[in-house]
This record gives sequence, structure tokens and C-alpha cells, in this order.
Amino acid sequence: MKIGLVANKDLSLALKVAKEVYNYLVESNQEVVVEESLSKIFKMNGVKIEEMDVDIIITVGGDGTVLHTLMKTTKPIFSINAGRLGFLTEILPVDLEYYLNKLINKEYFIEDRKKLKVLLNDERLPDCTNEVVIHTNEISKMRSYAIYIDNELMDEARADGIIISTATGSTSYSLSVGGPIVDPRISSMIISFIAPFKLAARPHVVPGKSKIEIHMLDKKKKSLIVLDGQVRKNITPSDIVQITESENTAKFVKFSNKFYEKLREKML
Amino acid sequence: MKIGLVANKDLSLALKVAKEVYNYLVESNQEVVVEESLSKIFKMNGVKIEEMDVDIIITVGGDGTVLHTLMKTTKPIFSINAGRLGFLTEILPVDLEYYLNKLINKEYFIEDRKKLKVLLNDERLPDCTNEVVIHTNEISKMRSYAIYIDNELMDEARADGIIISTATGSTSYSLSVGGPIVDPRISSMIISFIAPFKLAARPHVVPGKSKIEIHMLDKKKKSLIVLDGQVRKNITPSDIVQITESENTAKFVKFSNKFYEKLREKML
Amino acid sequence: MKIGLVANKDLSLALKVAKEVYNYLVESNQEVVVEESLSKIFKMNGVKIEEMDVDIIITVGGDGTVLHTLMKTTKPIFSINAGRLGFLTEILPVDLEYYLNKLINKEYFIEDRKKLKVLLNDERLPDCTNEVVIHTNEISKMRSYAIYIDNELMDEARADGIIISTATGSTSYSLSVGGPIVDPRISSMIISFIAPFKLAARPHVVPGKSKIEIHMLDKKKKSLIVLDGQVRKNITPSDIVQITESENTAKFVKFSNKFYEKLREKML
Amino acid sequence: MKIGLVANKDLSLALKVAKEVYNYLVESNQEVVVEESLSKIFKMNGVKIEEMDVDIIITVGGDGTVLHTLMKTTKPIFSINAGRLGFLTEILPVDLEYYLNKLINKEYFIEDRKKLKVLLNDERLPDCTNEVVIHTNEISKMRSYAIYIDNELMDEARADGIIISTATGSTSYSLSVGGPIVDPRISSMIISFIAPFKLAARPHVVPGKSKIEIHMLDKKKKSLIVLDGQVRKNITPSDIVQITESENTAKFVKFSNKFYEKLREKML
Repeated sequence: MKIGLVANKDLSLALKVAKEVYNYLVESNQEVVVEESLSKIFKMNGVKIEEMDVDIIITVGGDGTVLHTLMKTTKPIFSINAGRLGFLTEILPVDLEYYLNKLINKEYFIEDRKKLKVLLNDERLPDCTNEVVIHTNEISKMRSYAIYIDNELMDEARADGIIISTATGSTSYSLSVGGPIVDPRISSMIISFIAPFKLAARPHVVPGKSKIEIHMLDKKKKSLIVLDGQVRKNITPSDIVQITESENTAKFVKFSNKFYEKLREKML
Repeated sequence: MKIGLVANKDLSLALKVAKEVYNYLVESNQEVVVEESLSKIFKMNGVKIEEMDVDIIITVGGDGTVLHTLMKTTKPIFSINAGRLGFLTEILPVDLEYYLNKLINKEYFIEDRKKLKVLLNDERLPDCTNEVVIHTNEISKMRSYAIYIDNELMDEARADGIIISTATGSTSYSLSVGGPIVDPRISSMIISFIAPFKLAARPHVVPGKSKIEIHMLDKKKKSLIVLDGQVRKNITPSDIVQITESENTAKFVKFSNKFYEKLREKML
Repeated sequence: MKIGLVANKDLSLALKVAKEVYNYLVESNQEVVVEESLSKIFKMNGVKIEEMDVDIIITVGGDGTVLHTLMKTTKPIFSINAGRLGFLTEILPVDLEYYLNKLINKEYFIEDRKKLKVLLNDERLPDCTNEVVIHTNEISKMRSYAIYIDNELMDEARADGIIISTATGSTSYSLSVGGPIVDPRISSMIISFIAPFKLAARPHVVPGKSKIEIHMLDKKKKSLIVLDGQVRKNITPSDIVQITESENTAKFVKFSNKFYEKLREKML
Repeated sequence: MKIGLVANKDLSLALKVAKEVYNYLVESNQEVVVEESLSKIFKMNGVKIEEMDVDIIITVGGDGTVLHTLMKTTKPIFSINAGRLGFLTEILPVDLEYYLNKLINKEYFIEDRKKLKVLLNDERLPDCTNEVVIHTNEISKMRSYAIYIDNELMDEARADGIIISTATGSTSYSLSVGGPIVDPRISSMIISFIAPFKLAARPHVVPGKSKIEIHMLDKKKKSLIVLDGQVRKNITPSDIVQITESENTAKFVKFSNKFYEKLREKML
């Protein structure tokens, strides 16, 4: 098996666990490819995530590390938690050997999750696993947006921002502004609002196959587009953001499928 | 064309409009069948909704009249609003002739909406177009429920009640307790809570093909099950309520398909 | 010291703890007066809560037991938790002797909390420590209410119900429908809505010295008034409910004053 | 009467109305002092807001113009709306002459509203009429804060931001993130959260006389403090923000006192 290794270099625990993973896999006669910046710390050769030609990529860190990696690859991700409890990480360091053995013995399955394809005008931005956020670039100065679903005006919104989330992302940022928890088996996108001026504004769930378009209604004021909390870009009044389901999916290595059990741990 | 006619007898406007509809259809050489209780007011013969062997049923009233009729028939409904602005009614009395002509000329389409199949233990209750509510039978005394999705425990909830809604019902009762607006093209059910004790409780959207089961956790205290606001029934601690998508749909006569335009009128 | 003793007879733990309290106090040469229904279980003489001429009343049970007792007395309450974790109970059975000694040695202080005075037309109902609820008497059939603050129309509301809460009650029922947490040092009443039809409905905080009046706007349909979850009464369309701060307070025996610490335990 | 005149120079309607106000007052033999930047457009002499030694300041614009002016003066504000409907503006341009006459004839009263005093470490920032916001400086990257009320830890919060609002500001930014509407007669401050990670986070109302302290818990990440949407400043992990009621109030010229009527217009 050929395995890529990525870690959050800012977390000392992640570095320590990544080293253990590396050693264990090498001792188990697996081929390991280390991500470039991590490889410098390990003082060995490395490759970029987008160039990893591997069966599986192991990430060590939190949800951010998973999201960052998924922006650059379509390979399946096996994520080890070395940060705060996250929704996207699958196992804890304490269970490392048990699950690495399962991995090596191919006792896992791959879960496919929808990603979002984001067009800024004609430019394709990186696909998102959790959410796209369009947000005022001046804190506490609202922006006005028009939202179109399949070319029909859904609503105009004045708000700090709009979150367009996948079902996977429904337990993340969208949830913290009142969005619903959407079972990842449902092909859908969730539209929710950050600090909406209109008190009647409510989260919407739209079909995965629909096309969402967001237009800026302010003549001079800028906004920001943020992809999975990883990539930020300024957008100007004439820009149009188009969001659809991507043809690519996020692939997760899973050993069990207990969506609601994981949820209850977080919700408690 | 053979047309059934139903009206909310408690609204004098509905009676007046229903009479106009009756006269217009008869003058237009359509065959009209009048619902039994309405027929008594009109002093003519009538039949029960469930026995109406017609192409289409016209309802005159509000959403309640539509929901009541849909509990008893699978025929397509053409609904004329004679109550408060509703989501399920299609036209206003002022546009009556225009739309009755379109109906007679078959210039309409049928929109199919999912209904819920509700089992109370082994007994099948009437299908619901909007929602099933399970609610404490003592106001301001919470009940405890366990909710299972496809036999996996989703959560235990202490609350005044639980609403299980269709996408169609997502703009009704569920919305007023914080549930999301779900595009009716998505096969799904929405679970939301009335006055939940747990502050982290959030609405859930689950796949239309899943099976929801609700168990009562209080040993002695009763609850109430309410179907589309029309039918009420006591339930006891040993009862189990099972909810799935019905094999039958609610059929609506439509002349245009502007889901979000209708929504904006209400949300304003 | 002369001490009254009340317990929730439906909880076996409460009965057991109440017996321990009784024995400990008698052994410590305190005079104990047992509540009538509890006294029958203990096979001794008893008196009604409203006739207890004591320095302090000890309640053993949950928040319901405290609220029930406070409806019948203005004596200070020392509450021992023998139910679910509550906001109104002060100590746990495990700490019984420690705190009974503090009580006997007068090492406590009295915290005064505002109560609500409720007039149904001209009839004065029992004062409320937590909240007054006005609620449809038919589950899932909304009612329409007009709310006046100091004779000015605040709003008309269609909802399942309205909660008028004290600051003390702000962490109870009102909280579960989105009401804010109000520091009990603020003289105020909180108005919040159960399943409001109008999406822009929001909780209100009004001055403690204001007068709230609620009128029923439906011509024929009944509602229910519920006081602290303990007393229920039907109300009819012509009834007017008036709510002001009571001249009486709820008095709690306290050993420390850590409002936010208690809150964090619950909110976790 | 000596009157100051301020307008939002970016709104052409505001400039037009301000000119009408100026002319009308001069013709009515009132002494008018024009704000410096406005005076340049009017090609006359002007003075800074903070140096206006006048009886009353008239603002022409929206809520932003009122808030901006109130940051620089303690003089009473008479606000004419020339922007979007606001809570802080008192009259519409169409009623200009009627109300200017009332002003000149002293047929008005002054309403005092509490302001917030904000200390950033030892530095006093401008007083706020609506709210102080502490917000991540990186969109969609939460920050962690500890909130102390009168030196007791209220809670730790991970969120995009925290809003500390006056009762006056309770109908503004705080409302859009779920905060309650607080009657301005109540001496209080409202704490609410923007996109809180903890689902159990709820808005709090604390006494006006209390001291709120906010500490940054992230070791390296910056936040932003925003005062009434007008003034922005970076804050670093070691900074402490202290908020209390100011000794100064915001003074509003009023002709009637219909708080709830104004509210209903907005809440519609």
C-alpha cells in the first residue's frame, strides 16, 4: 500500500503522532510519502499534496488539516485527531496501531461525500467539503446579496454573511448560525445567514442538483469569499459567485458508520 | 370533466365562493359532485370525500381545508383561498373565472408532494401532507422521547413536543419552532422540537427513505399525536410511532411553479 | 429554630432524604413541622404548607416541589435536590449534614426573588416564581393574542402560547423557546413565544414595574393559563390576563451566590 | 436657539434635506452651526462636532450618522431620516417643517439613553450608544473569549464574535444574532454571540451597574473591537476589554414616546 502523510505542523502533538504513524507504517513495510513541509521537519524527502500518487492520505491534526488536504487531492483521507474533537476526524491517537492495522489489512470502507464546485465569475476556485462563506470585509457593516436558485430569485438578504454548506458541513459553521443538521445521505446544499437584518430570514435546504448564484447588491462595498475556512479572496460588487455540486467527492476512510453517535458526542 | 367540491363551512366567504364555483362549473357543462356536509347547505345531493370518483377536487377555504381533504383522498386538489394566506392554496377568489377556465381547458399540471405514512404500533393512521406532531398532553409539562433513525438512536429529547414534517410542511408548524425551509424537490423528512429542554437541540433533516421511530420514555405520562392539525389521538408510554414516506402522494393542481416567489410573500 | 418539611411523595429518594432530614433536625433539637400529606407517610401529625408558621421550609424534590411550595407560602425555602438537576434547588443529598448544620447555625443568607402577580379578570391567581403560560388548549392549533405593555399595544401574536417569565424563570421554560438568560438582579419580566407564526417574533424584556395585559383575539376558541407548571385553568375569549410584579417575593436560603457557576453546569 | 447641523455627505438626499433644514432655520432666525465637512459642500464656515457649543444637534442621514455624532458629543440629537428606516432617527423629511417648528417652539422632550463606557486596558475608547463588538479579525476563524461579570467567570465562548449592547442597541446588531428586545427603561447590558460554536450559548441580560470584562484566550490570534459600527481597532491576546455603563448618556429629542409602535413598523 502506498500512503501519503500530512500533519498540522503547528501542533506539537500532531508532529509526534505523525512520526509514530510514519515509523509504524515503514516497519510494516508500507510505502510512505511525506508531505513537503512536514518532510523538512522530519529531515527527509517530501512531495506536495497535489502530487501525491498514493492509495490513501493520512492526516494528523484537526478538521482544518482534513479540509486543507481535501482542497488539493481527491484521494481518500484517513484522519487522526490531534486537535480539538472534530467531525471530520475518524480516530484518536490512542487507537493508532489498532486502526493502522485495519488500514493495512484493508478492513475499511470509503465514504463518499459531496463537495461544492465554486465559480467566481468564470474562474473555478478549489472545491469545498464543508462550506463557502461570503462575508462583508468590514466587521459589523452588513452587505446586501441577492440569492438565485436555478435562476429564480430566492431572496435578497442584508447580513454579515451567507454560508452555503454541504450536508457534511451542516454540523460545522452553518450549525452555529442556526442551520439544520442534514443527514449526509441527502444530496443537498444548505443556505444560512450570519446576523441577518431581516428577522424572518431562515436557513434553506436546496437540492444538490440545483445551481446557487449570489450577486452583490452594494455598489461600492467589498465582500470576502472564504472556502472551507482555508482560502480567502476579495470579491467586488460586479462579481458573481456560482455554486453547484462538484463532480469530485471527498473520500473518507471509515471503519464504522455511526453518524448519530458521533453527533450526540458533540451535541451533548 | 368530473369535479368534486369541498368547502370550509365555518367561513361564510368560503360558502359564497363555493357556490360561485358550483354555478360556473355547471354552466360550463362540467359534472360537479358536492361534498356531503356542504351539499346539505346547498340543499342538494352529496357524497363523502373518500367516495368522490372524480378527476379533480376543488377545495375552498384555507390550508386546513386542503389538509383535511388530502387525508381522505388521493385525487388532485385545486385549492381556492378563502381564509388566511396559506402555502397550500393556489389561487384567490378574485381570479376564479380565469383559473376555472384554465382548469376546464386542462391548462394545468399536477405537482406531486410526498406524504408521511404513520404507524401507531401496528395501526396505520391517515397519511400526512404537512406534519405529524407528538406532544405532551399536559401543557407546560415536558415529555421524554427517544428518536431512532433506521434503528440507530438519533437522540433522546425532553420537550413539549416533536414535529416530523415533510418538505411541504417545512414552511408550516416546523418553521415556527426554528426548522429550515426545505425545497419540496428534496426527498426528506424534517425533525424539529417544540420547547426542547436541551439547549443544543437542533432541527434535523433525514432522508425520505429512512424510517423514524419515536418511543415514549416516561413511564406513566401520556402524549398526544396530531396529524396535520386535523386528527388527535392519545398515546401511552408503551406506544411506538413509526414514520416513513407514504406510497401515496399529495397531488396539487398548479398553474405555475414559483416556490420562492410564494415564500417571499409570506416571509416578507 | 422552627422548620417546615415538604417532599415530593412520588420520588422514593425524596422520601428517604426527607426522613433523614427529619431525624437529623429532631436530634439537633430543632422543632420540625411536617407537611400534611408527607406526615401521613411518616405516620405523624402534619400541617398544610399555607398554615406552616415556621422560620424556614425545607423542600426535598426537584424544581416542581419548590414551585409548588412557593405558591402557598412566603416563608424562606431551603431546597434539597432529590430529582433532576434543577435551578431552584440549592444542595445535593450527599451534602445534607454539612448544610443542615450551617442552617441551624444560621450561616446562610436569604435571597429575594421577584414573583408575578396574576389577575384573571378581577380574580387574583397564585403568585408565580418562574412563569405564567397562556397556551392554546388544542395542540397544534394556534391562538391569537394581543399583548399590551402599560396600556400600549406591544404586538399581536399568533402562536401556540406566550410565556411571561421572571428573571428567575428565564433559565427555565422561557429559555427553551429562545428567551434570554436574565440576571435575577434586574427587575424585569420576559415575554417569549411558543411556536410563533410570525417569523420576526422575538423575546422581549420589559421593566418589572410595567403592567402586561393579554387579550384573546379568537372569538370562540379557548386557551389555558398555567402557573409555574403547577396550576391549570381554562380561559375564554372574553378573559383578560393582567401580569405585574407581586408585592411578595420568593425567599431562598442560600449559602453562596454563584449564579453563573450554576448556569455553566446546566449549559455545558 | 443655537443648533448644530450634521449630515451624511454620501447620501445626496441627506445633503438636499440638510440644505432645506439650514435655510428654514435661518429664515426662522435661529443660529445654525454647520459641521466642518458639510460646511465645505455648503461653501460656508464650519466647526467640528466635538466643538459645537449648541443647544441641539440636528443629524440628517441614517442610524450611522446618529451614532457617529453621538460618539463626539453629549448634546441632544434631533435626527431626520434620509437613509433606510432606522431606529434612532425620529422624523421623515416630509414632516420637516412641522417638526422644526415644534423644535423652535420647544415642544419636545429629551429622552436619555444609557451609553457604554469601554476601556481597552487603561485606554478609554469613545462611548457607545448601540454596541461594542469583539470579533475575529479573520472571517470564518473563530476566537475564544472568557467573559467575566463583576469578576465572576460567566462563560468561555468560541465564536466569530461577541456583542455587548445597550437596551437601545438591542433592536440593532444584537437582534440579528438572536438577542432579545430590551425596553430602554431597563438599566441593562445585553451579551450575545455571533456564530457561537457551543450550541447551548444563549444571549444574556446583565445589570447596567455590572462590570463586563472580556479576555482573549487564543495565544497568538488577533481580534477586532468595533464601536457602534463606526470605529475599528485591532486587539491582541494580552488585551483586556472592560465595559460598564457610561456616566454620559445619549440624549434624543423626542416628540412622542411610542417605543412599541416604532418596533412593530420594523418587525412587521
